[in-house]
Amino acid sequence: MKRLAVLLSGRGSNFIAIHDAMLRGEIPGAEIALVLSNKADAPGLATARERGLISVAIPSKGMKRDEHDQAVIAELQRAEVDLVILAGYMRLLTPAFIAAFPQRILNIHPSLLPAFPGLDAQHQAFDYGAQIAGCTVHFVDEQMDHGVIVLQRAIAVNPDDTAESLSARILHEEHIAYAEAIRRVLSGNYTICNRRFIPKKN
Amino acid sequence: MKRLAVLLSGRGSNFIAIHDAMLRGEIPGAEIALVLSNKADAPGLATARERGLISVAIPSKGMKRDEHDQAVIAELQRAEVDLVILAGYMRLLTPAFIAAFPQRILNIHPSLLPAFPGLDAQHQAFDYGAQIAGCTVHFVDEQMDHGVIVLQRAIAVNPDDTAESLSARILHEEHIAYAEAIRRVLSGNYTICNRRFIPKKN
Repeated sequence: MKRLAVLLSGRGSNFIAIHDAMLRGEIPGAEIALVLSNKADAPGLATARERGLISVAIPSKGMKRDEHDQAVIAELQRAEVDLVILAGYMRLLTPAFIAAFPQRILNIHPSLLPAFPGLDAQHQAFDYGAQIAGCTVHFVDEQMDHGVIVLQRAIAVNPDDTAESLSARILHEEHIAYAEAIRRVLSGNYTICNRRFIPKKN
Repeated sequence: MKRLAVLLSGRGSNFIAIHDAMLRGEIPGAEIALVLSNKADAPGLATARERGLISVAIPSKGMKRDEHDQAVIAELQRAEVDLVILAGYMRLLTPAFIAAFPQRILNIHPSLLPAFPGLDAQHQAFDYGAQIAGCTVHFVDEQMDHGVIVLQRAIAVNPDDTAESLSARILHEEHIAYAEAIRRVLSGNYTICNRRFIPKKN
């Protein structure tokens, strides 16, 4: 079984969607080895406990960034994690963290990168007047919202959308995209050519 | 009848697609009043002549940019043009040009703006490893590839795509998008709220 760690700071709606997909058998050969948060009171951590998953809080408050990252890395290595899933983990990772899990950290961003990086991507897209929005699952590298793209999903912005209704529909796509991207990566059935993630034919 | 001017510097494949759509009755209430190029030998200009359309060459070579733009503006005003369609017109427009046709100049760009502005957008998207590509029809403003978006169309990048096969499929989407965007704008049935182009309900 491939062992996943999910890192979150909040509700963890993507964590829940991924776990639900696993329970439905949609991510075969994988299990969630632990759910880790930098906030002890993150609702996603409570959900993990309710679901019988191992949950770990390593509070970041008052800790230096690299000290905190080292503690997290140690925890992930102890749990023999194969893939690290960021699901609303509101921390920039240090280069040491990224180097410890090369091409084994995934993040999801609520826009079609490279458009609208950074915070509040859905509002950015709405305010820009984009008519196609979406989400991106990508490997994490040293630059923010930048690594190799595993999967993108697009949706149309409707004339009667608000930023909130658009955000809700993007979130729905995120839940589908993240499970599919994890399947793709765990299959190992791909090559990366420069920045291009290329699934192999079976 | 609404009078369109098409400006091009090359083959004008979008010009041909727009004219074909008109011949099929898909852009009702509109006609091409003239096809204008800054290059006397632009193949699109020859096509315009073959199709019995008024064609005008105003060579830009050796002319100052604002002189040339003034000559083009005069020609468009003489022809009482309602909407200016850029179809591979390889010139940056002066502010005077844009001011002469406020929210009445359309351009098409082969990416989902604001991603991949500038030259060779299709290759940029391919090299970036984008998995969703597309095209954008937008009003022209003072900034390059920036004005209010009238329409975007998205396509998936396939694992076996080359930059060339991707470009060809984007071009196909451009031909559909430009005719539809012209219909939307000519209908007058929209509002622009900040940067958002919002079609009105009938």
